[in-house]
Amino acid sequence: MRRELALHTDKYQINMMYAHWVNGTHKRRAVFEAYFRKLPFGNGFAVFAGLERIAQYIAELRFTEDDIRYLSEQEENYAPAFLEELLQFHFQGSIHSMKEGALVFPDEPLIRVEGTIMEAQLVETAILNFMNYQTLIATKASRIKQVAPNDTLLEFGTRRAQEADAAVWGARAAYVGGFHATSNMLAGKMFGIPTKGTHAHSWVQSFPSEQEAFDAYARVMPDGVTLLVDTFDTLRSGVPNAINTAKKLEAQGKRMNGIRLDSGDLAYLSRKARQMLDEAGLQYVKIVASNDLDENTIMNLKSQGAAIDTWGVGTQLITASDQPSLGGVYKLVEIESPSGEMIPTIKISSNPEKVSTPGKKAVYRIIGQNGKALADYISFSGEEAPRNGVRLKLFNPLHPYMRKHVEHYEALPMLEPIVVNGFQVYQLPDLNEIRRYHQEQLDLFWPEYLRKLNPEVFRVNLSEQLWNRKQQLIAEHMMPDVE
Amino acid sequence: MRRELALHTDKYQINMMYAHWVNGTHKRRAVFEAYFRKLPFGNGFAVFAGLERIAQYIAELRFTEDDIRYLSEQEENYAPAFLEELLQFHFQGSIHSMKEGALVFPDEPLIRVEGTIMEAQLVETAILNFMNYQTLIATKASRIKQVAPNDTLLEFGTRRAQEADAAVWGARAAYVGGFHATSNMLAGKMFGIPTKGTHAHSWVQSFPSEQEAFDAYARVMPDGVTLLVDTFDTLRSGVPNAINTAKKLEAQGKRMNGIRLDSGDLAYLSRKARQMLDEAGLQYVKIVASNDLDENTIMNLKSQGAAIDTWGVGTQLITASDQPSLGGVYKLVEIESPSGEMIPTIKISSNPEKVSTPGKKAVYRIIGQNGKALADYISFSGEEAPRNGVRLKLFNPLHPYMRKHVEHYEALPMLEPIVVNGFQVYQLPDLNEIRRYHQEQLDLFWPEYLRKLNPEVFRVNLSEQLWNRKQQLIAEHMMPDVE
Repeated sequence: MRRELALHTDKYQINMMYAHWVNGTHKRRAVFEAYFRKLPFGNGFAVFAGLERIAQYIAELRFTEDDIRYLSEQEENYAPAFLEELLQFHFQGSIHSMKEGALVFPDEPLIRVEGTIMEAQLVETAILNFMNYQTLIATKASRIKQVAPNDTLLEFGTRRAQEADAAVWGARAAYVGGFHATSNMLAGKMFGIPTKGTHAHSWVQSFPSEQEAFDAYARVMPDGVTLLVDTFDTLRSGVPNAINTAKKLEAQGKRMNGIRLDSGDLAYLSRKARQMLDEAGLQYVKIVASNDLDENTIMNLKSQGAAIDTWGVGTQLITASDQPSLGGVYKLVEIESPSGEMIPTIKISSNPEKVSTPGKKAVYRIIGQNGKALADYISFSGEEAPRNGVRLKLFNPLHPYMRKHVEHYEALPMLEPIVVNGFQVYQLPDLNEIRRYHQEQLDLFWPEYLRKLNPEVFRVNLSEQLWNRKQQLIAEHMMPDVE
Repeated sequence: MRRELALHTDKYQINMMYAHWVNGTHKRRAVFEAYFRKLPFGNGFAVFAGLERIAQYIAELRFTEDDIRYLSEQEENYAPAFLEELLQFHFQGSIHSMKEGALVFPDEPLIRVEGTIMEAQLVETAILNFMNYQTLIATKASRIKQVAPNDTLLEFGTRRAQEADAAVWGARAAYVGGFHATSNMLAGKMFGIPTKGTHAHSWVQSFPSEQEAFDAYARVMPDGVTLLVDTFDTLRSGVPNAINTAKKLEAQGKRMNGIRLDSGDLAYLSRKARQMLDEAGLQYVKIVASNDLDENTIMNLKSQGAAIDTWGVGTQLITASDQPSLGGVYKLVEIESPSGEMIPTIKISSNPEKVSTPGKKAVYRIIGQNGKALADYISFSGEEAPRNGVRLKLFNPLHPYMRKHVEHYEALPMLEPIVVNGFQVYQLPDLNEIRRYHQEQLDLFWPEYLRKLNPEVFRVNLSEQLWNRKQQLIAEHMMPDVE
């Protein structure tokens, strides 16, 4: 499945690379950080994902001869020696990143890229493209998981996903966020995610009667068959026919797995179907529901006493329908000066939340003595790491008067080294390990931070050094008032 | 860029294929049609796209040995002879489709697939995945185009797109819908779409001053340079510095292309910047705007007198943010009986709009004597085609009493043969031809159908034969009332 993605970048990246190359500044060291400013869906946290894809992309990043030919035709401006250099290009910088499955928060670096300005610029677009989408879907999946923690959750979104990559990487992100299986076979093959599927209305339509269709399907898949019961009339045809089929299986010593409802009032239909199944002695037959579900409809259905065991979630999950983009950005935080010093740098904006925080940073999750996360703490990466017994001042960077001190805590460093000078040093964990890590991360937080609606805001604090440097740079870049 | 997509399908497709194979019904002929039930964004039409991707997918559709190994491990149920048959599989059916760029409407077949039930079932998922996304984005682009018909429109969405395929195929769909260029270089290379780009804030931040950064960029790209002016302070720093750079270029007989605004109040800032540029004699310098734009913000900015020439549209376009999925479905409409007859088939639903229309169909666009589209007309494909001089009854399928007759018209068949018995017979047009066709399609419609808000509903009519057959099948499948 190797794909050439060197040109999966914005034109301005190539233009800036070229301009630095002409200007002789292309070898300058630079540090960029990727982060988002606002949590999606009104959630209290996001679930980081995308690292495996990013690591793969970085490792395979080469321009092909074809790519170079395209660039030379596109822009006659580009000097041949520059294009020659691109042909030799491979990523030689360093990347630190959150681990997949981590709970992450606004304005903290999720990925830190260090390298020449040329290489660090090139990779921005793809890194954001992968991180933004996969983190979004893992977060959405985690929200859905929260309202149905003990039910089976199936990702069924491929046909409504935004093209093929979204279907497969989205299925993976959903699994990271706690889903149990996907319908997408390619995702199953690529990532080892369990796959599930029932049958479509067309199966029923292709037989003279629903009963014959059900019996035929059950004959082929005697264990684990789930029958879709709404092709004609759920309660008057689908469920009774499914019960007949289940009874025939029982006569052979076999058990039907479930029935699937895909339209109509799922609360009412599931309760009625449950009652019909139970009266037929089929307490073990599960009810699967699908049809435009998300965390809100699932919560409402549960509060109405819906008798649903398994949720097939499609469109709303795979497109993150209520907010289909994360909005992560990638900002230059340090740049080498002509004299070789690394200089923290800032981007000002008339929108205060868009002002970047200068400097190469470290992120710590501060865990209190009760084992629960107190806050995240961001410092320059060169500062001494906070450690138990050393009093730490936590203050709100927007409202510095809101502060407290902690002395007994654990400070977990959150950014892992992934690539060092072009070599991948991080062993990508398997998906089940990532799911376990995600669960451990959830366990670090009080439920108040995790709830779906109006969660408590988990604080991300800056070190005093960082905060002071930011204020200083803002002051330096402010233009004098016009009178 | 060839990719193996045979497993880019839902597990239930493979299960149904297997069940038909065991049941001995896998060679039965079947006809499926893909359509959507509801227009996105409250628009009056959709713009069909996705065919090139679908044709490629169909032509390359093979299971690899790896795929087969995966399937055999996944499901021990599958018989070896079935897997052997998959290894030999290639698509031998026929596909008819709307042409890319066509204006299309709810409940009319956009793609019609005929083949064995086995092959027609396999391709459902990928066809819907491609058609749903690309049609959605072409439609969104067309809406944006409508509010800025004479401006330059740039697709800038890659970093917020839902993974890589969405970025490149979305860029293509935007171009189909009337955009002029994309920032994505891979889309540029794959499809020959013009590419555009300016520079990022990081370019400015990597220089000691904004002025030096601007001058350096202009030196490298003396013609056509566009400078981003909001890194520190748009009106007090960015625009004045850009004017200085433009003047230096003029001294060398060169012209700056434009400035880009990426934050703040774009209406106010663009008017002020225009004034400053004009006062400096730089009437020719264009103003490019970006920052979460869509058809609504663009229309509002224009009504506020914003002085913007070029719009860089990202997130809202590439994710179709206000409705990120089209909801197209793929339904079985005919199936071969054991005796070899093709039988129209129906799917009933308690949601009336979800009842499918049986039978293999043709779609005609009926053009009146004034050259404007009157309605679409769907019949069984076996019915005689409507033709000028033959009185045609057009009636509303939901409210049959609303009817009219036309006698002088042209009936344009809308579904083109793409693949016949496994061979591609359709020459995929180049993108510029598709754009021209899209424009011709727009020209067929009165503006009332095309407007962004509360458009008139363009009628899709059924032939009387089709309507009667549908009513008959509904009656046959209705269960008796329970008393």
